[in-house]
Amino acid sequence: MAQGKVLVAQGGGPTAVINQSLVGVVLEARRHAGMGQVYGALHGVRGIVDEAFLDLSRETTASLERVAATPASALGSTRDKPDLKYCQEILKVLQAHDIGHFFYIGGNDSSDTVRIVAEEARKAGHKLRSIHIPKTIDNDLVENDHTPGYPSAARFVAQAFAGLDLDNRALPGVYLAVVMGRHAGFLTAASALARKSPDDGPHLIYLPERHFSLEAFLGDVKRVMDAKGRCIVAVSEGIHDASGTPILNSMVKTLDRDAHGNVQLSGTGALADLLVDEVKSKLGFKRVRSDTFGYLQRAFSGCVSDVDQREAREVGEAAVHYAAAGSSNGSVAIKRIGEYAVDYTLLPLETVAGKTKTMADAFIAESGTDVTPAFAEYLRPLLGTGMPETHRLRPNRVEKILKR
Amino acid sequence: MAQGKVLVAQGGGPTAVINQSLVGVVLEARRHAGMGQVYGALHGVRGIVDEAFLDLSRETTASLERVAATPASALGSTRDKPDLKYCQEILKVLQAHDIGHFFYIGGNDSSDTVRIVAEEARKAGHKLRSIHIPKTIDNDLVENDHTPGYPSAARFVAQAFAGLDLDNRALPGVYLAVVMGRHAGFLTAASALARKSPDDGPHLIYLPERHFSLEAFLGDVKRVMDAKGRCIVAVSEGIHDASGTPILNSMVKTLDRDAHGNVQLSGTGALADLLVDEVKSKLGFKRVRSDTFGYLQRAFSGCVSDVDQREAREVGEAAVHYAAAGSSNGSVAIKRIGEYAVDYTLLPLETVAGKTKTMADAFIAESGTDVTPAFAEYLRPLLGTGMPETHRLRPNRVEKILKR
Repeated sequence: MAQGKVLVAQGGGPTAVINQSLVGVVLEARRHAGMGQVYGALHGVRGIVDEAFLDLSRETTASLERVAATPASALGSTRDKPDLKYCQEILKVLQAHDIGHFFYIGGNDSSDTVRIVAEEARKAGHKLRSIHIPKTIDNDLVENDHTPGYPSAARFVAQAFAGLDLDNRALPGVYLAVVMGRHAGFLTAASALARKSPDDGPHLIYLPERHFSLEAFLGDVKRVMDAKGRCIVAVSEGIHDASGTPILNSMVKTLDRDAHGNVQLSGTGALADLLVDEVKSKLGFKRVRSDTFGYLQRAFSGCVSDVDQREAREVGEAAVHYAAAGSSNGSVAIKRIGEYAVDYTLLPLETVAGKTKTMADAFIAESGTDVTPAFAEYLRPLLGTGMPETHRLRPNRVEKILKR
Repeated sequence: MAQGKVLVAQGGGPTAVINQSLVGVVLEARRHAGMGQVYGALHGVRGIVDEAFLDLSRETTASLERVAATPASALGSTRDKPDLKYCQEILKVLQAHDIGHFFYIGGNDSSDTVRIVAEEARKAGHKLRSIHIPKTIDNDLVENDHTPGYPSAARFVAQAFAGLDLDNRALPGVYLAVVMGRHAGFLTAASALARKSPDDGPHLIYLPERHFSLEAFLGDVKRVMDAKGRCIVAVSEGIHDASGTPILNSMVKTLDRDAHGNVQLSGTGALADLLVDEVKSKLGFKRVRSDTFGYLQRAFSGCVSDVDQREAREVGEAAVHYAAAGSSNGSVAIKRIGEYAVDYTLLPLETVAGKTKTMADAFIAESGTDVTPAFAEYLRPLLGTGMPETHRLRPNRVEKILKR
């Protein structure tokens, strides 16, 4: 069993529940005799090489519990993707501070960092237990039923579309929202859970798992508008054409060829605005609106799944159990074992590191513009309790008198 | 006392609590012997001229209560601004259906419609009590302490910035969000209520009540970045230059002169994207991100102020009281009578109709890029109970060993 201090860090994009995992590690590590002081690195791996550590052993339990309920990475995060040399620097610091247990909470890039650090520690003969703790709103870690952070972001997307559908019902037209997820469509697909009645939106869902064609998109929108007089569309930011080129890039390229000068279109609202312009100019509909959910979907304070909170806490705790009792490094993974219950396993780091999971074909409707009931069954229990309910007036129509 | 049926309708942009006002009218009207059946017009004044009515007397109380808790206009809304002829058509329908009480829930345009309809009814000798019920997330109705709908939208903005500030703390840089409100800055100003500690964002707030200068903006952002290493900015969509020209228009005009071809910049994300491009190109900061809150701030399902819910219900009830007991038409207004309590009065329709309230100078800081403590005192009680709390780790730093 490894001895020495504990080091925990957070990497990649923040989530609503990443601090639950942090606090799960800290509180559980405190209970283990073999584990010494618990350090937290500020801003992920960057804080490790800079020796920017907080002594989390000195933090009160009450304070930790309040931090756990706070969204975004309390230790700070980083986008650094360490190479071999960077990881060797990390190891030097771990050795200097007598770190025997290293926990890194993050996505597939973070798991790759853990893998390299663990390998370097082994080569250097430094006794180190290295555990990757899963986290990503993209839900794209292989061999995980789902990842902590995704359920809360999915809940935000579902609650957003539930309200936006009612808004569009009140003032009908075309409404389009761009949702995060460059390679995996899980978050965009969550928009389907906003539906209650058959005519509720979103009526069209475009995922990066399928090729996007502007012509087909315009045809789909026209068909829905002709049938329903309104159309709600969920679009993944990662939609791309048959050649794999992101739609934003291919559309901007066309515009570039028109020599449009120095207008930069890399901003976050560009894809939504361009698609709106296409619908307006090609289909002629008047009321066409769009939003880009942007950072709100991972950062909004006050939209969280209690199931996600609980599981994020548990993967942190489970990581400490594996470090204390187990004999190998690895990545904690969530396995679904019932409807609805989960268990946690430890995967070899190579299994997860640097790999990306996308939506299974069974989750995507034949049309390519919707999800299947199987996806709704998969996601529903993750959204947690207390989802806001909506209700409509019943259509007790009054007979016309003037009939003009 | 007027007799006859009751007609209620909803106009303008939906809010999180406009159905509370609708249900306040319906349930209260049912209790009054002088009031007959309660009709609801679909899609505001458009539904009146089309005789598209629901018989709300046949709707169950349980259903109405659930509709009250649902965001967005349950009867549907409209952007129609009726002229005299349109209002005369409305009156014909009211006469044909023996409507004696007309309630229109909306902003200052809706109150103007009520004013014209009331005047035409008087001229035609049709006994009609006409009451305007306030509603707008812009909070821009004169003689109202605030308007139903604003507190819930303000709460969304405050919760959004609370989370976005934490997100930016984790991955520092410049972050800018564009908030609704073309002429009044109340909703953008609500971002200030996200702050808990002195170094929390937003660090800069740009309101339409002050002229916007791109040079001053860039100087402000640079100053905050140099001091704090990060900068959160709240920008009203209605910011304009000293000549009153909206910044988006004046920037697009400049770009137009560069002959940038057929790029349409009227989309919702354009202002944020253009300001981001300026910060990147002129100041050279690397991590510059933005969002445009868009429809989420009025439509998100699951973010509502309980104070707002209660007051929205009460203005609907009060409207029926004034119609049943009073002798004049008018617009229900919210008066603050304590810290915190409100009362409702009936204003002459001419007082409210077509007028716009903007933020008082006492609510705007001398710098022009922040609000005053007086504004925070004004807004805080409106946000309601159960605002999410956030908490930070205490800075128990570990001494460096390698010190590289």
